[in-house]
Amino acid sequence: MNDRAIGIFDSGLGGLTVVSEILAAMPEEDVIYLGDSARVPYGIKSAETIRRFALEDAAFLLSKQPKLLVVACNTASAAAIEAIEQCSSVPVVDVIRPGAAEAVRATDGAIGVVGTEATIASGAYRRAIHELDSDRQVIEAACPLLVPIVEEGRDPSDPIVLHVLADYLARLQRLRPGVLILGCTHYPLLSAAISKLMGPEVKLVSSASAAAQYVRFVMAESGMRRRTGTQGLVSCYTTDNSARFSRLAGRFIGPRSQLESVEHIGTEDLAEALESLGGSLRTPLP
Amino acid sequence: MNDRAIGIFDSGLGGLTVVSEILAAMPEEDVIYLGDSARVPYGIKSAETIRRFALEDAAFLLSKQPKLLVVACNTASAAAIEAIEQCSSVPVVDVIRPGAAEAVRATDGAIGVVGTEATIASGAYRRAIHELDSDRQVIEAACPLLVPIVEEGRDPSDPIVLHVLADYLARLQRLRPGVLILGCTHYPLLSAAISKLMGPEVKLVSSASAAAQYVRFVMAESGMRRRTGTQGLVSCYTTDNSARFSRLAGRFIGPRSQLESVEHIGTEDLAEALESLGGSLRTPLP
Repeated sequence: MNDRAIGIFDSGLGGLTVVSEILAAMPEEDVIYLGDSARVPYGIKSAETIRRFALEDAAFLLSKQPKLLVVACNTASAAAIEAIEQCSSVPVVDVIRPGAAEAVRATDGAIGVVGTEATIASGAYRRAIHELDSDRQVIEAACPLLVPIVEEGRDPSDPIVLHVLADYLARLQRLRPGVLILGCTHYPLLSAAISKLMGPEVKLVSSASAAAQYVRFVMAESGMRRRTGTQGLVSCYTTDNSARFSRLAGRFIGPRSQLESVEHIGTEDLAEALESLGGSLRTPLP
Repeated sequence: MNDRAIGIFDSGLGGLTVVSEILAAMPEEDVIYLGDSARVPYGIKSAETIRRFALEDAAFLLSKQPKLLVVACNTASAAAIEAIEQCSSVPVVDVIRPGAAEAVRATDGAIGVVGTEATIASGAYRRAIHELDSDRQVIEAACPLLVPIVEEGRDPSDPIVLHVLADYLARLQRLRPGVLILGCTHYPLLSAAISKLMGPEVKLVSSASAAAQYVRFVMAESGMRRRTGTQGLVSCYTTDNSARFSRLAGRFIGPRSQLESVEHIGTEDLAEALESLGGSLRTPLP
């Protein structure tokens, strides 16, 4: 048993879909969430920049003494998971390996993956799937416009959303994988539209949902679950304006939202947290 | 006469359309360009965050001793121009006032403006137009997906580009302004498609081109032009990966590109430049 909070970060708001799944599975847990909205999106940037930002985000959360760290951003998971694990004193859960594992379990056929430009370019899903089954066919598609479309708040049934999705999914529709991994925490908000285009035979695996299930498993295994009847609290930090964060968060976290607080934190404070953490590590940061 | 360079910054690559226009008008001038690609885009962020980033960008360029500073980003111009002017020792040209002035000269009718969410929400174009003609009808439309579409490198004749544009421009097409201001330095790359949708009677004003003409005017007026027959150099700095910047820059700056160098600069160095500048100012930064 452990009463400390779960630390979760994302480049912006998308990781709140992971928070939402974690709250649904373990409503008694406290969550500290960091959304780096001042530098969102990560998915169009270089691996070096993403790694630096992700390490800063992780260092800030680690300074809050969480019991577990969740990298709720596929792009950050792809670029920085080894570096974060190297500097973390608590277990780290990413969103890529749980999604890959669930996909391998769910089908014997090919596995499709949609994600940001950086996630797909990293080949992280392909590697995670091939670690479990080296012969598995993996069909990937980068979908750079989907994050801006979700952040714009466009209705998933909007003709433009369907038009853009049909364009990105054309090859996947032809090749018909058994499973399609939604390899970005923004994409669950478009799952109805994606499912409609792919047809009922293609099972969708949400990296957000798979990660939440894996967090529950890790916490149960290592006796980390909180034992209280009261509802946990979600404290948020954002590098952009906190009012804007609060206003947009509802779209991701749903109506049973229980955001206790939303505070602004400067990116310079994240950089400082990384510097402090670097000083306390035996091996220097990459 | 003044042999120092012109300093130009943008949130990313879009400002290179301004560089391109300046090179066309004054090929002998040297340019130092800063693209804050690690934190791009600015247009979906809060005014406070944009102001902070823009001041850091300006401070970095000012540390290079330019003869003139160009804020080649509509979002940064809208949020931070007064703050930048307050701390700059050299003349500052933004991209909003020159575009507004050209539009007022070009039509007696209504003026349309398209821009990012933050630019439109700031009301900066409306204010700049009304300072010149307080009765002028201004019709604004925020177009959040256009920057990601241009950055994705989609062909302007792609059906998705036309579909998205038709959605954003629907009200402007009905109201038929005399002029439509492209109030974002990314949009000139879509001008053929926008023109097709708006029809030949609606004149397009590019904020990039208007700003470049105004830069030429200011420099001629104050005797700042370089007098040399040799071609000027463009030195670039980017906060993201320099190889990625070089690869994508051609799309914005065109084939007659003369990028002398592209160097990486950390956002922490921009923050430091602002701190140093703050120390040398008589009045504290806003």
